[in-house]
Amino acid sequence: MNYQAVLEDIVTTLRPFLGADGKVASYIPALACIDPKQLGIALHTCNGEEAAAGDSATPFSIQSLSKVFTLTLAMQRLGDALWERIGREPSGSAFNSLVQLENEQGKPRNPFINAGAIAVADRLVSHVQGKGNRGSAKADILALVSSLCGEPIEFDAEVAASEAATGYRNIALANFMKSFGKLDNDVEAVLDTYFHQCAIRMNCQQLARAAGFLCCDGAHPFEQDSEVTNERQTRRINALMLTCGTYDAAGDVAFNIGLPCKSGVGGGIVAVVPDRLTLAVWSPALDATGNSLLGMKALELFVAKTGLSVF
Amino acid sequence: MNYQAVLEDIVTTLRPFLGADGKVASYIPALACIDPKQLGIALHTCNGEEAAAGDSATPFSIQSLSKVFTLTLAMQRLGDALWERIGREPSGSAFNSLVQLENEQGKPRNPFINAGAIAVADRLVSHVQGKGNRGSAKADILALVSSLCGEPIEFDAEVAASEAATGYRNIALANFMKSFGKLDNDVEAVLDTYFHQCAIRMNCQQLARAAGFLCCDGAHPFEQDSEVTNERQTRRINALMLTCGTYDAAGDVAFNIGLPCKSGVGGGIVAVVPDRLTLAVWSPALDATGNSLLGMKALELFVAKTGLSVF
Amino acid sequence: MNYQAVLEDIVTTLRPFLGADGKVASYIPALACIDPKQLGIALHTCNGEEAAAGDSATPFSIQSLSKVFTLTLAMQRLGDALWERIGREPSGSAFNSLVQLENEQGKPRNPFINAGAIAVADRLVSHVQGKGNRGSAKADILALVSSLCGEPIEFDAEVAASEAATGYRNIALANFMKSFGKLDNDVEAVLDTYFHQCAIRMNCQQLARAAGFLCCDGAHPFEQDSEVTNERQTRRINALMLTCGTYDAAGDVAFNIGLPCKSGVGGGIVAVVPDRLTLAVWSPALDATGNSLLGMKALELFVAKTGLSVF
Amino acid sequence: MNYQAVLEDIVTTLRPFLGADGKVASYIPALACIDPKQLGIALHTCNGEEAAAGDSATPFSIQSLSKVFTLTLAMQRLGDALWERIGREPSGSAFNSLVQLENEQGKPRNPFINAGAIAVADRLVSHVQGKGNRGSAKADILALVSSLCGEPIEFDAEVAASEAATGYRNIALANFMKSFGKLDNDVEAVLDTYFHQCAIRMNCQQLARAAGFLCCDGAHPFEQDSEVTNERQTRRINALMLTCGTYDAAGDVAFNIGLPCKSGVGGGIVAVVPDRLTLAVWSPALDATGNSLLGMKALELFVAKTGLSVF
Repeated sequence: MNYQAVLEDIVTTLRPFLGADGKVASYIPALACIDPKQLGIALHTCNGEEAAAGDSATPFSIQSLSKVFTLTLAMQRLGDALWERIGREPSGSAFNSLVQLENEQGKPRNPFINAGAIAVADRLVSHVQGKGNRGSAKADILALVSSLCGEPIEFDAEVAASEAATGYRNIALANFMKSFGKLDNDVEAVLDTYFHQCAIRMNCQQLARAAGFLCCDGAHPFEQDSEVTNERQTRRINALMLTCGTYDAAGDVAFNIGLPCKSGVGGGIVAVVPDRLTLAVWSPALDATGNSLLGMKALELFVAKTGLSVF
Repeated sequence: MNYQAVLEDIVTTLRPFLGADGKVASYIPALACIDPKQLGIALHTCNGEEAAAGDSATPFSIQSLSKVFTLTLAMQRLGDALWERIGREPSGSAFNSLVQLENEQGKPRNPFINAGAIAVADRLVSHVQGKGNRGSAKADILALVSSLCGEPIEFDAEVAASEAATGYRNIALANFMKSFGKLDNDVEAVLDTYFHQCAIRMNCQQLARAAGFLCCDGAHPFEQDSEVTNERQTRRINALMLTCGTYDAAGDVAFNIGLPCKSGVGGGIVAVVPDRLTLAVWSPALDATGNSLLGMKALELFVAKTGLSVF
Repeated sequence: MNYQAVLEDIVTTLRPFLGADGKVASYIPALACIDPKQLGIALHTCNGEEAAAGDSATPFSIQSLSKVFTLTLAMQRLGDALWERIGREPSGSAFNSLVQLENEQGKPRNPFINAGAIAVADRLVSHVQGKGNRGSAKADILALVSSLCGEPIEFDAEVAASEAATGYRNIALANFMKSFGKLDNDVEAVLDTYFHQCAIRMNCQQLARAAGFLCCDGAHPFEQDSEVTNERQTRRINALMLTCGTYDAAGDVAFNIGLPCKSGVGGGIVAVVPDRLTLAVWSPALDATGNSLLGMKALELFVAKTGLSVF
Repeated sequence: MNYQAVLEDIVTTLRPFLGADGKVASYIPALACIDPKQLGIALHTCNGEEAAAGDSATPFSIQSLSKVFTLTLAMQRLGDALWERIGREPSGSAFNSLVQLENEQGKPRNPFINAGAIAVADRLVSHVQGKGNRGSAKADILALVSSLCGEPIEFDAEVAASEAATGYRNIALANFMKSFGKLDNDVEAVLDTYFHQCAIRMNCQQLARAAGFLCCDGAHPFEQDSEVTNERQTRRINALMLTCGTYDAAGDVAFNIGLPCKSGVGGGIVAVVPDRLTLAVWSPALDATGNSLLGMKALELFVAKTGLSVF
């Protein structure tokens, strides 16, 4: 299939709608000032083929997309022990998040809601301490993402500071879990890791490559014979993305698009067609569920044009 | 692949565990007295190949599996209008069901929770009335399932009566939705339909065949050129099964098995491998989440042996 | 104190506001067609003194005020055993009612929310059965209220039928409790009692007299040496009225008025000044919390003018 | 009445039960090591009469009793504007606290739950800033309590530090409210005030005197013609204590004791008989609802012996 043509076609189709609808995330200034009239798309296949169109080289704040990478790191390091602290079920509506955390005694429903990603960060911080405190969880996260991209990836310090200064809801979640004895480390250390992972800057091309292992049973995109995750773990990450990856729209995304997806409030979405390819799309304006409006449209078009879907 | 050998192998592997663990559903006498030491498995492929092992010819109460067929019927008849009354999101924990129904003003989260299936039944009752009250929703449901099986399928009158006599929770749900103006018909008529659909008796071979359209883009298993649902609708039913089909274990089932599944408290499970085959398993003893304990084990073994999974 | 002058003064002060604000309960036709421009007030003192002003002789549907009388009857008959099935805590917001019922396994928070009054009705039905089914709970309720008023009191059959025909929320509550095994009798029998008690018709003068035992340690208003409830029980009913008697405005009513009150959606309110007097007010237009708007104003004026308050 | 004899009698009756039941609060070490076999009781009447028995001179951590004094201070300073940020309704079960805070967009249900007291502390901090930052909310609180006692009252620095070091739930609540824009000041400054107020040390005699204004329409216990709160405000504080003062046992306390009460996890309880007297009791072992077990028994005995109750 001529993927390059498909991606260009999608961008051409959607460009007229740029800026028409949706709202850029405004909870921190660094995100609020992004120009909404941007759209990028890129893909990376199992065979290493790549294609890209639109603003695919423009870096943006990956925000919750980082949860895919920290989950990957935690699965590498803790194996099944990770799941003692974190569930694998969709959370139902956002409305219930805190009730559920209370009802389930501080154990988050899954690693892709904020509470779950904070619990994952706690595990990563503990792992570094277990090695005698050499390095840091933040450094480990950057190292993984940089290795997957084949080039250095950095935090946006301004965004990280902004998250820390105004992240009251996340501070509340972390302290709430701590009150149930479900975080082992200092709340500050855990949140510092979490706020930094959200502030990673990447572009669509880098994201498609970095998440490329998800479409080929966990194989590293460049390092031959190197495995990011094993086949079983890879399938499980995809399953979590499909059931829990797009906030309270996971059911609708499965219904309409039918691919494992993880989205972020920066406007990025990563989608996986198992055994075929990984897609990354980006457009900053969000719909009411917090997912990129045109990003989701781009995925719908991609599925319609290629017939690729897990169902 | 020699599916017959695979199924026999699974039954042989699991037979020693029959009766060891889990509990038969006990909320109505007709279910409570079932011998738990039974295990059946059957499959139907896109090409019409069939295979079966164990107690695959023993009929049982399909209970919530009926929700797949009533959803199918409602999608045939109402198209997208169906979704005005019913959501498509996982419900989070069982614990939240009534809260969510209250918070969402009587609109059920999805068609596979009880509230959602009752709302689907209300749509089917309305459809019959719209045709001048010829026939009944109950007859329509039996007609669909019988056509898909190629042989007559019946309700178990005793089970239906038992459901009606003790179904206080379902009566509560229906009246609660009615109080929000979300059921158009008399609560009694809607529940009569619902209690009967739960009381349908089928065996694994019939179920695998009847749900066979889900693995081949909606094509009727026997009637050539006849479409049960179109390709898009078929994918959507599979997506709903994966995200919402197994109570509050949907995330875990996606994580561990990776196939769209719908389960019932009678111990049956239907699973779909898109473009390949539909599986039906049955073993009456349930795990803590209300899913068939050995049925889920059988699906795990099937995926491990065949490598078939959507992820 | 010249209570007659006080009451007349209150009616004169509030009459200009009749019809200006608030809304008549509209969930059943029989209530929706009431003229909102009515205001009655009456009181009955410990010494048997009575006073009344405005539309104090106009009968209206007492609705939830009946919960005071059924609670009284149940305390007479069951003593402390009543509290095995019903709590004594405020329910927090209406929003939580079903959550709490689910969380507390079908045991209602208190006897003045609908679920609690339905549980009280179930106890009264069981009591009649325990006596060999002579009479009925409905007859017992009318007998108590008639005895307290000194004249026959009746149900409004039209209102009772209307409640039964449209009371989906109450049917849902009763079935939900039944599903937890918390109602011993048939849901229909219990609800028939409940819908009838809500449909009792009384006027302010009758209500002030009938609830007169609450201001004089339980003494019957006419029958000397006869005790409706003992001193301890009487104090407890007053305590429940203060903490739970006015829906989700109980805190505000305690804060602003400072008297035990029970209100109904028919627009009636009964208030008690312990050791002094019982007041009944009525005006059909309700505020956003479901309490009579001018009724509450009348009570505020009464407290301001007389300085009577429990605090 | 010979109050001294009544109090001594109560202590004599309850002394045999000291240590038999209940549990000392253990969430901070400074509280966990308190000897549970202590019981003090003291009262202060409208006329200035005082009586005391048992360990009435032993200071203890007043914890949530401080909420009465900070509410008093906030009512003095903000008047009715205080209620824009804080409700006046019972919270229902503890179980719902966070749900309700979410549902009501960060506005606490009442000033006596932790969230409400944190919101009150925020108001006190703002008031100090409004005066040009002279002094501090902490100093203002100590000044009020010291003035009411007629002697200097201090914080226990060790307890305050312990609260701050382990108060994850309170930190979560404060950040959650901040995320809704319902705290104007830095979370740290507000919590520093809150953790200190909880760490005030007083004995029963001081508490009975300091809360003495609540039984005499707000009059200062010593400073003639000086008003702590006006009559209306005083009644309102009492109403809030009765409906919201004893965690999720407020309904039961009203039912069994019938007096406005505020309790603390240090084992203290303040109770008010309006127009008569203020009582303070203390015994460190708590019942399942977090209220002093023997403290509540002492209040029940006091009401039984004196017949004093608001109902």
